[in-house]
Amino acid sequence: MKCRCGKEAIIHLRPYRLSLCDSCFVDFYERKVRRFIRKWRLVEPGETVYVAVSGGKDSAACLAVLQQLSVELGIDVAAIHINLGITGYSEKVEDACRRLCRMLDIPLEVVNLVDAYGVGVEELARSTRRSACSVCGVVKRYLMNRVPRELGANRVATGHNLDDVVEFFFKNWTSGNYFWISKQKPLLPSTHPKVLPKIKPLFERSGLENEMYVKARGLPYEADECPHAVTSRWGEIAELVEERAPGFKLAFARGLEEIKIVAPEPQFTQCSVCGEPSSGDPCAFCRILRAAA
Amino acid sequence: MKCRCGKEAIIHLRPYRLSLCDSCFVDFYERKVRRFIRKWRLVEPGETVYVAVSGGKDSAACLAVLQQLSVELGIDVAAIHINLGITGYSEKVEDACRRLCRMLDIPLEVVNLVDAYGVGVEELARSTRRSACSVCGVVKRYLMNRVPRELGANRVATGHNLDDVVEFFFKNWTSGNYFWISKQKPLLPSTHPKVLPKIKPLFERSGLENEMYVKARGLPYEADECPHAVTSRWGEIAELVEERAPGFKLAFARGLEEIKIVAPEPQFTQCSVCGEPSSGDPCAFCRILRAAA
Repeated sequence: MKCRCGKEAIIHLRPYRLSLCDSCFVDFYERKVRRFIRKWRLVEPGETVYVAVSGGKDSAACLAVLQQLSVELGIDVAAIHINLGITGYSEKVEDACRRLCRMLDIPLEVVNLVDAYGVGVEELARSTRRSACSVCGVVKRYLMNRVPRELGANRVATGHNLDDVVEFFFKNWTSGNYFWISKQKPLLPSTHPKVLPKIKPLFERSGLENEMYVKARGLPYEADECPHAVTSRWGEIAELVEERAPGFKLAFARGLEEIKIVAPEPQFTQCSVCGEPSSGDPCAFCRILRAAA
Repeated sequence: MKCRCGKEAIIHLRPYRLSLCDSCFVDFYERKVRRFIRKWRLVEPGETVYVAVSGGKDSAACLAVLQQLSVELGIDVAAIHINLGITGYSEKVEDACRRLCRMLDIPLEVVNLVDAYGVGVEELARSTRRSACSVCGVVKRYLMNRVPRELGANRVATGHNLDDVVEFFFKNWTSGNYFWISKQKPLLPSTHPKVLPKIKPLFERSGLENEMYVKARGLPYEADECPHAVTSRWGEIAELVEERAPGFKLAFARGLEEIKIVAPEPQFTQCSVCGEPSSGDPCAFCRILRAAA
């Protein structure tokens, strides 16, 4: 498999019918992300964008590509990581984040859930009888808005990739969570003065592309999955469909970009415990903390 | 496989985890369609509903179930069939429609394309260099609005089934035809004084259910496919997904019912040739006829 430049290819991009070597792929990837950010106006010059890094390949790619494009986009890039207190895993991923940010020379804010609130995600899951993933989602959504805002961020970027987008769509459509799907856009504007806009610069980039990008740039990331991770059947099903109809995932994501899905929307109120905006009172985060107290 | 009444089952409905005998299935089917029509207010008492019948199982089921429910819904039911002039096929399906309507004692209007306009669908396809299916779509959309309206219809019902709904969604989403998807609802309200509302009472009924219903009621239909029919890969892919995730198609259709998809909408103008409402001038029907002249 040869790249168009003649060198040995490292990746074949089936939807684009393209085989690329490492340096041509890095160019391709950065060009695609640049065009995507401009098309959907994901950032404005002068803004500070906090990238939520997990230690994994996707958020590492997001951080690295945003930094690469930061001068031409006129933005400052910083990182936030939440140490969720998962035994034998959180130390490892925090370390990957620290090494990544050191290499890229990007300021990193680490919030340690156990230090800050006295409990880790596993304990919160046990005491609320919810799954670790559901509790983790609440914690991340809360802290990844509150902490960057308090540090002066204008936006939060996440490493959600094309595979996540398609899996999320099917999982939630078939479960009737249409409102969540309606929010699945490259840019989620602020809906409240205390809610930062969220951006997904890698909306059209596959997990494989993100992995190849961080590898081609020689950046560190943690390849091990969270011990609580559950693989959704919808991820597998999407791959099956992609196999039969190459380009399906990309075409699907583009539809989500172009159209607007109208579904009943919950109204914001203010959490009487912490003051953060929320659809319930107390907010989901404070309810979880209270159950664990 | 036994029905809950103890008799031998004729169908297993996997999404409902239900096996039913012929008479319990007929009850089930009519109950489901009744509830669906009421939920989405597909008809109003006093209306005349024209069912577009093709001779196949789905539109036969649609006609039969609407007639069955007509007294309690307070509607009059009539049928319209378009003979498209497809050699060796159109005679057969027209005959099936005539036998069906005779058996059900429902008035049937037959429009013969060759008699009325001097050309059949195959000749139109050749002279416009379009596929027979694409020309057929234009012809049907045009005549199935114009003719019932001139006959005093308040609504047109079609036999679109659950499999059609899911296939249509994937095919058009991945082709970027979002506006067409936005119109894929159980009830498509009138958007112009000369455009009748269209209803799809079998939106949640699978092709198999429709076949079983007409069979259980002993009604005639033509099982042969149109010689121009092409099987879309999306139909097969949807079956593959249904296999892995039983209930997928039904859950999918329910999403389309619940949400509103906003996509850029073409504006109506009036065709200067025939006076029918259209997004272009002349309308697609008159353009096709002109090319064949």
